[in-house]
Amino acid sequence: METVQIDLGERSYSIVIDQGVVPQSATWQKLPKAAAALIVTNDVVAPLYLASLKAALQTQYPQVHEVILPDGEEHKDWQTLNLIFDGLLANGCDRKTVLFALGGGVVGDMTGFAAASYMRGVPFVQVPTTLLSQVDSSVGGKTAINHPQGKNMIGAFYQPQLVVCDLATLATLPARELSAGLAEVIKYGPIADMEFFSWLESHVDALRAQESAALVHAVRRSVEIKAWVVGQDEKESGLRAILNFGHTFGHAMEAGMGYGNWLHGEGVAAGMVMAAELSKRLGLVDEAFVQRLRSLIERAGLPVRGAVIDAQDNAGRYLELMRVDKKSEAGEIRFVLIDGPGKAVMRSAPDALVREVIDACCV
Amino acid sequence: METVQIDLGERSYSIVIDQGVVPQSATWQKLPKAAAALIVTNDVVAPLYLASLKAALQTQYPQVHEVILPDGEEHKDWQTLNLIFDGLLANGCDRKTVLFALGGGVVGDMTGFAAASYMRGVPFVQVPTTLLSQVDSSVGGKTAINHPQGKNMIGAFYQPQLVVCDLATLATLPARELSAGLAEVIKYGPIADMEFFSWLESHVDALRAQESAALVHAVRRSVEIKAWVVGQDEKESGLRAILNFGHTFGHAMEAGMGYGNWLHGEGVAAGMVMAAELSKRLGLVDEAFVQRLRSLIERAGLPVRGAVIDAQDNAGRYLELMRVDKKSEAGEIRFVLIDGPGKAVMRSAPDALVREVIDACCV
Repeated sequence: METVQIDLGERSYSIVIDQGVVPQSATWQKLPKAAAALIVTNDVVAPLYLASLKAALQTQYPQVHEVILPDGEEHKDWQTLNLIFDGLLANGCDRKTVLFALGGGVVGDMTGFAAASYMRGVPFVQVPTTLLSQVDSSVGGKTAINHPQGKNMIGAFYQPQLVVCDLATLATLPARELSAGLAEVIKYGPIADMEFFSWLESHVDALRAQESAALVHAVRRSVEIKAWVVGQDEKESGLRAILNFGHTFGHAMEAGMGYGNWLHGEGVAAGMVMAAELSKRLGLVDEAFVQRLRSLIERAGLPVRGAVIDAQDNAGRYLELMRVDKKSEAGEIRFVLIDGPGKAVMRSAPDALVREVIDACCV
Repeated sequence: METVQIDLGERSYSIVIDQGVVPQSATWQKLPKAAAALIVTNDVVAPLYLASLKAALQTQYPQVHEVILPDGEEHKDWQTLNLIFDGLLANGCDRKTVLFALGGGVVGDMTGFAAASYMRGVPFVQVPTTLLSQVDSSVGGKTAINHPQGKNMIGAFYQPQLVVCDLATLATLPARELSAGLAEVIKYGPIADMEFFSWLESHVDALRAQESAALVHAVRRSVEIKAWVVGQDEKESGLRAILNFGHTFGHAMEAGMGYGNWLHGEGVAAGMVMAAELSKRLGLVDEAFVQRLRSLIERAGLPVRGAVIDAQDNAGRYLELMRVDKKSEAGEIRFVLIDGPGKAVMRSAPDALVREVIDACCV
């Protein structure tokens, strides 16, 4: 059993990465004692893994309740979040109740925010069942729901007690979603670790074929790098922003296409190519690097060209959407660029150059 | 200008207590710089103080937006909270925007929770305009909204950047609400400081007449004691619970009567008498102490007898409501009792004895 320790002082916790650990009661033994646990999941994941998690937890908690949310990003809203509060109160859950998030990023984000807010904070545990949520939302303590006017606008920084990445749960994940998760894995190469990038170039086929040892290494190295970055900047004031490599363009694609048409990882994939291209035009990397990144992204089964989100003024629409992104300050877009392979930098760029990149990179 | 420093490491802040400080731009000068401020207030307070706060802030922030909520505890819900998020997003507010809570406890609780949650946390400032919120919600970092099944069930611990208690704003406060605020002032005597209690016995008439020097001392001493308690227990795991002296019985009255029929401070006032009576019957204090407390509460214009909340089985209904209180654990009621004047203790008590107290103390 591989374990990565996330060191955040009194908010420290472990990430367990292995095959088949959800059904084992030993996995959950060190968690805080409580009269009750409540599992939050969705209607796609529930038929697959709810029963085995529930059985394992029943050896530890006298009562194990469940709340099953409708699946999908479009339900990441207050009304759905309130189903968790309703379930907690209907079952008389006190402030020691442990919440379990069983599912992908949406379930993790909502359960985390519910845990942060219920009685001003109860313990919670993440059991991510997608590659994206295993590598991305298991580190960083970001929880949130969407507002009609913006994604993840309402939330909290709140750390779990434990994260359990059971690679067996990926067996039921559609290939397209596995690829989308790989986008966030690939990201760590250009911003922090080109050795890992080379490893990915050798193992991308094994990852797509879900070979266990390759998955363990990819998840482990991703969370290690993310933990290293987040450990230096828990509340996202500076360095942590480099984790958004590809996300500024990617968020504009997601917002411009309507959320759900492109998967998050797909927007990030094409967004990384665009950010690399912008880095090149600013003289920070060469064309060979951009080509190498593009090639790995393509082999991972991901788009390498940006979406056209406005037939009349595509670049204008991108700029407009990027200016309202959470990371913008007073309307200035801060891009995560690559300052030589393996090193990220935050910079603004002239609008005219950004327009050139968008025009060159979109289908 | 009196200032109390709240020492919470990197979350430290000041409480300013004085007459007429809201309209002075100097009051706000040390706050973080930002492109925008947003004032949250309600439709009762807005006509009185919004214009002067806005004018003062305009010397500091290029843009000063406002959101005016409907007044009242019954609006302390998600729908009303969302008006704040709508206002923030409609005005393109970024994560440096400073939120100002101008009003009583409801405005403070909601604005604080909005600030804790908007983009996972923006700075906020409290400008409490009731005595209750000046002495109570200005220290402790508790923010929350209500759920149909329970008060303050959804919220966060989140500290302000600054609290400004302008005693001039109390001039427009109804006498009944001033008295309700005094309940939370009186509370600090029995649990922590009998010298302050004696001072209150000498100055309760001056306080009800809003004599400035008396108000400054009462607010200052209350926040000092609360800060001392909270400083030792920021997240309410132990000692901090003593601040709920009178609140266990009081919450049951508020819930049993329907929120709004009794003011919070009125429930606390009668609840303190009941908790003192329970302390006496457990042999912790004598009858003279109970009588002294009852007399001061009465002179403050507050009820000294509990409400009858169920004509059939009043004590049973109290017990039922107290068992679902947030402070209960696994159904056991934890009372804050007085273990000799000036010292609080957390204890459970036999149901039969609690019933006797309720029967003896309710009208």
